[in-house]
Amino acid sequence: MKFYMPVKVFDEKECVRNHAAELKSLGKKALIVTGKGSSFKNGSYDDVKAALEQENIEFLTFSEVEENPSTDTVFAAGERFRAENIDFVIGIGGGSPMDAAKAIALVLKHPEADLDHLYDTSKDASALPLVCVPTTCGTGSEVTGVSVLTRHDRKTKMSMVHKVFPKYALIDGKYMASASHDLIVNSSVDALSHLLESVLNSKVDDYVRMTADAGLRMWAETKDVLTGEKKAGEKELSCLMRSACLAGMSIAQSGTSIPHSLSYTLTYNRKVPHGKAVGYYLPGFLEAAPEEERNRLLGLAGFSGLNDFRSFLHKVFGDMDIPEEERKISFEAVRKNEVKMKSASFFVDDEILSRIVQGYSAS
Amino acid sequence: MKFYMPVKVFDEKECVRNHAAELKSLGKKALIVTGKGSSFKNGSYDDVKAALEQENIEFLTFSEVEENPSTDTVFAAGERFRAENIDFVIGIGGGSPMDAAKAIALVLKHPEADLDHLYDTSKDASALPLVCVPTTCGTGSEVTGVSVLTRHDRKTKMSMVHKVFPKYALIDGKYMASASHDLIVNSSVDALSHLLESVLNSKVDDYVRMTADAGLRMWAETKDVLTGEKKAGEKELSCLMRSACLAGMSIAQSGTSIPHSLSYTLTYNRKVPHGKAVGYYLPGFLEAAPEEERNRLLGLAGFSGLNDFRSFLHKVFGDMDIPEEERKISFEAVRKNEVKMKSASFFVDDEILSRIVQGYSAS
Repeated sequence: MKFYMPVKVFDEKECVRNHAAELKSLGKKALIVTGKGSSFKNGSYDDVKAALEQENIEFLTFSEVEENPSTDTVFAAGERFRAENIDFVIGIGGGSPMDAAKAIALVLKHPEADLDHLYDTSKDASALPLVCVPTTCGTGSEVTGVSVLTRHDRKTKMSMVHKVFPKYALIDGKYMASASHDLIVNSSVDALSHLLESVLNSKVDDYVRMTADAGLRMWAETKDVLTGEKKAGEKELSCLMRSACLAGMSIAQSGTSIPHSLSYTLTYNRKVPHGKAVGYYLPGFLEAAPEEERNRLLGLAGFSGLNDFRSFLHKVFGDMDIPEEERKISFEAVRKNEVKMKSASFFVDDEILSRIVQGYSAS
Repeated sequence: MKFYMPVKVFDEKECVRNHAAELKSLGKKALIVTGKGSSFKNGSYDDVKAALEQENIEFLTFSEVEENPSTDTVFAAGERFRAENIDFVIGIGGGSPMDAAKAIALVLKHPEADLDHLYDTSKDASALPLVCVPTTCGTGSEVTGVSVLTRHDRKTKMSMVHKVFPKYALIDGKYMASASHDLIVNSSVDALSHLLESVLNSKVDDYVRMTADAGLRMWAETKDVLTGEKKAGEKELSCLMRSACLAGMSIAQSGTSIPHSLSYTLTYNRKVPHGKAVGYYLPGFLEAAPEEERNRLLGLAGFSGLNDFRSFLHKVFGDMDIPEEERKISFEAVRKNEVKMKSASFFVDDEILSRIVQGYSAS
């Protein structure tokens, strides 16, 4: 049983402005890592810029992080900024910029690092200090050490083997005020899957239950926003971000499980958004779980049971018509992976897995 | 709103043996800091010694930490070991050795440090890496940065201003198997007070509620051990230690409140054990709290309400006959301290405080 969460989390209104002094403590020159678009529109970039200027911290910006960022992007940033004497890195955005920022913080610390360094546990895992400013409510990357990167050389996504935990996570719900409903739904179902998969996990313990139970209760507060029955005000946006943070704390302890593993090919082959793809496989996974624990978890999230949860997914995602052959690909990708098959807290064999891959439309 | 818990917690059977490699990562020479007695009897010292020997880590032992350790003791250790090139410190025991170990880890890092250094926020707060191995179920010091020290120059106890968080907390319930029933009761009521005071606290937030609620649920599992209705087996000893750890995580976020402040003179003047002294003032504090939150918290801890909680205290501590004049001293010590008066989540004035100091016998 273990608990490890070294990130100092500040989770409040005007968080970036309030903690400019913490940025100062990390050095004199920062590199901001972000995507091409949203951080410039939702106010997060401007807030970070203002905080850095207030503290007389020099900074440069790398805003070329794509969705599912590649190791090529990481090394391109490393190349471009290695001579700039960067002291620390600030990742702003969803999972993609934050994950890329972790790897860039490592590469800037080790200018000699090649691709192999990121995937060799014997190499030095130290990185420049990192700050994360999330602007979505799914990934939880602001409180995990995980950096998922696309490797074009292998035509797949692979997590860097080194854990790079941010020093600070600066969480402010206001950065989601301009997010599209689709983005909120997709991120938030991803957070829900983190909460459920971290508990229905072979590595579950009392500490995972603590963060995940708190996260599920928080998530329940936001459910009506996802179905459109309630408008997302300041409080709801905060709850969305906080439940994602608690979900991140949970997977930081125990990791994800089968729905995440099944989802990857769906996203890769059919461009199904990550949250929706994971959501597709969640009901079957829950159905295979022990009834009492399933109902306890769904109850915490505000559902009366599995059918209620299925109805919710229909409401937010509509029908999902995934062809049999695509589900077969998900099935084959996971059944051969012994580690993944054993990642659930309950027994899963080929037969059970084949029921899980039926997806949420089956009832 | 914030969450900060940088300690890597391992909480399991044979924890010290299982994590000998983590000790190795901290250096080649350790100083063990412990008290005069119990760690040599309950197996904790032998386990640490065996782990260090297994990893070929040299070590020295300082076993002169008294109850309510003084700054004199801290500097005596600093003096004795400063030339020994100690790489890291291991504190074994209850709150006293762990708190002393924190200050000793700081003093060994700064051989020039004087008493002023410990109480001056402008001084360097860095310390040698620290590992804590708790052997009681109250203090939670293994997961806080707090070091409470006795200052003979001021005839009082004062927390060091610098926070020294352990790198690792190695928690194993077996070290309590030989503890006296009195020690278990006193420690465990102290842990309960940490859980309640961290939530009924002006600094409470969702993160404090998360750790404290989990701790209260865990504490409820052990209640029958304290009343003697159940024998403490392996599971119960683990629960006792885990609830104290979660309580420590809670006060690490928000701190304690009025019952702790009131308790100090009772302990100092009448030698009432810390847990019992805090327990004496808990019911009055709870009575002054908003009814709904009070009942929610007591419910989590397994009590049907305030009267049930009072009965429990009677059962485990018996009648406590504290003279009026002594209660008056507690009252005067706290009413003048504005910070303490405002540390509760609800309004407390002299009149409310005077009701709180009536102690638990009043109903």
